[in-house]
Amino acid sequence: MTGAVGEVGRVTSRAARRDALRATAGERGLDAVLVTDLLNVRYLTGFTGSNGALLVRVEGPDLFGTDGRYTTQAAAQVPDVEVLVDRGTVSALARAAVRAGVGRLGFESSHLTVDAFEQLRAVLVDAAAGGTVPELESIRRAVEAQRAIKDPGEIEALRRACAVADQALAELMAEGALRPGRTELEVGRELDARMLALGAEAPSFETIVATGANSAIPHHRPDGTVLQTGDFLKLDFGATVDGYHSDMTRTVVLGQPADWQLDIHRLVAESQAAGRAALAVGAEVVAVDAAARDVIAAAGHADHFTHGLGHGVGLEIHEAPSIGPLGAGTLAAGMAVTVEPGVYLPGRGGVRIEDTLIVTTDAPELLTLTSKELLVL
Amino acid sequence: MTGAVGEVGRVTSRAARRDALRATAGERGLDAVLVTDLLNVRYLTGFTGSNGALLVRVEGPDLFGTDGRYTTQAAAQVPDVEVLVDRGTVSALARAAVRAGVGRLGFESSHLTVDAFEQLRAVLVDAAAGGTVPELESIRRAVEAQRAIKDPGEIEALRRACAVADQALAELMAEGALRPGRTELEVGRELDARMLALGAEAPSFETIVATGANSAIPHHRPDGTVLQTGDFLKLDFGATVDGYHSDMTRTVVLGQPADWQLDIHRLVAESQAAGRAALAVGAEVVAVDAAARDVIAAAGHADHFTHGLGHGVGLEIHEAPSIGPLGAGTLAAGMAVTVEPGVYLPGRGGVRIEDTLIVTTDAPELLTLTSKELLVL
Repeated sequence: MTGAVGEVGRVTSRAARRDALRATAGERGLDAVLVTDLLNVRYLTGFTGSNGALLVRVEGPDLFGTDGRYTTQAAAQVPDVEVLVDRGTVSALARAAVRAGVGRLGFESSHLTVDAFEQLRAVLVDAAAGGTVPELESIRRAVEAQRAIKDPGEIEALRRACAVADQALAELMAEGALRPGRTELEVGRELDARMLALGAEAPSFETIVATGANSAIPHHRPDGTVLQTGDFLKLDFGATVDGYHSDMTRTVVLGQPADWQLDIHRLVAESQAAGRAALAVGAEVVAVDAAARDVIAAAGHADHFTHGLGHGVGLEIHEAPSIGPLGAGTLAAGMAVTVEPGVYLPGRGGVRIEDTLIVTTDAPELLTLTSKELLVL
Repeated sequence: MTGAVGEVGRVTSRAARRDALRATAGERGLDAVLVTDLLNVRYLTGFTGSNGALLVRVEGPDLFGTDGRYTTQAAAQVPDVEVLVDRGTVSALARAAVRAGVGRLGFESSHLTVDAFEQLRAVLVDAAAGGTVPELESIRRAVEAQRAIKDPGEIEALRRACAVADQALAELMAEGALRPGRTELEVGRELDARMLALGAEAPSFETIVATGANSAIPHHRPDGTVLQTGDFLKLDFGATVDGYHSDMTRTVVLGQPADWQLDIHRLVAESQAAGRAALAVGAEVVAVDAAARDVIAAAGHADHFTHGLGHGVGLEIHEAPSIGPLGAGTLAAGMAVTVEPGVYLPGRGGVRIEDTLIVTTDAPELLTLTSKELLVL
């Protein structure tokens, strides 16, 4: 708990986030925006319940909607926005928009379902009662675009999420939990349990533990495969803290590494360092991807690196920006991204090395601090 | 692992599920259905990855779509459906539907976003290349309606999920982990970690641990509140096993209970028993709710039971049927539901008792086996 100062800071930054969306809405000629995606609502208000929506008005006060289960929680988490409690949360906000004289109403077409859109339109027609029905216009992913640039409070949450993952792995290694004879599932469950014990709300995603030939499968689900001496062990995992996700991959060897294992680990580490070095304000995401990919291609392994280099992380484990050969756009200060090249040799084994970092005007800030040397366990 | 027999059984039941949807589509005059909701796709195919969609054709073979990350996983998990690997998964299936001569295509309007619907329509127009563009028609929640009735494999998964939750709570109680001096957060994290250690993939939802006056908040999030002698301790939690969710609430007292605590616990237990007794094939859900609610109302606490009686559980923690005063429809054999009345006295404390059960032609099968006596810890 950071106490009162932190709380005030968070409230202030959420008001600033709503003001930024308000400015976007104004530029697009809208009178208000109806935010219905729960993560976007959380980002703009701090509300963590399972039902909430937000009406951001260009002129006039905002309005937060939820249902009766969350009356107490809304008062505590959203102290600075008026709360409207109604079982039909989105419909109630839509009627409030009509009452407030909104003529052009923005909505989130990348989240609202076809059914919910039809219902929203029907409520607007009904509430207008023969008067002018507000026009609906998509704001596309305007809130997600804001979310791509993290503020200091978000970066601190990401730091803590990464620290939990680092610490969990360090403890398991110190205890000898990553040893031949254990199964992938056992290792994965211990890693998850350790992250929870260290204060994570949840793992960031289904933890990947892949050993031996399984390590050549980029998204292998842990199963009963037994860890064996001489095999690679690839761990891709993260912790969620205050809703923010960390993401890290390390690949170790159980026992003495063979030459081919040393070779591809060295190659991936070199590629990953090149990718990290390319993280700079203004860098094209395709150029960042290429910086890492070229290293692997030059060694003749282009076909063995079958996915993009990285992605944004925050309230979602995958969010903007996408860093890959088909990506678009440039990096900006405050973006939180992963850099995670891999080389996968089908049937033999694979290596991926991944960090979570913050793009800054200087060198990127590394949040996942576990060593990237080839650890021999 | 249940081995080969179980695997064959699962594949068979998934084919039967697709055949049931095929029949529904035929009755509605559709040529095919495009299933895009990931849980519905998982239900119909067994696929657990993060990107998959399914084309079910009334005549002719079905087609499962995913992207290159999941080629191996799709082959393993969906052995009985042809797999189409394409980055633009839904678009690729839409083009396949046009090639197959589909005239009327069902889609899931309660899941597809406005943006995805527009993209789907554009792809169909493009693929038709001047020919007849398939008509899109919503299938509403046809797959969810199927999912409400669990088959034996699903019921077995629910049994195991409930057993993990029972066992986790029993272990914590036996170890004295629920004692004055500890915080809600500590207890919640231990419960979560224990469920993972016992084989859960994840907690079913954010575990609720609420003590003292917090127990009067139906959906209290665990915080740093310290457990104190004489207080209620309300635990609402569950485990996920093979994708299926358990859900159970127990309320205990730390030390000797006061008379008012004994009274409301007895009242809620009586209400809960009445609700369970009302679970029968053909029973109206409003009548089931009323059976439990009337007990509480007769004791003068109608205003202190502020939520519905229960809900279906399965691949989602909340799914059909909804059992509440505003519910609609009747119960059928094979439905998995919760019965969870509560009485909440603001500022003092509250009691909720919840089980997960299967509706049968006989008495309902109780899956959550932890005692419902008022446990005094």
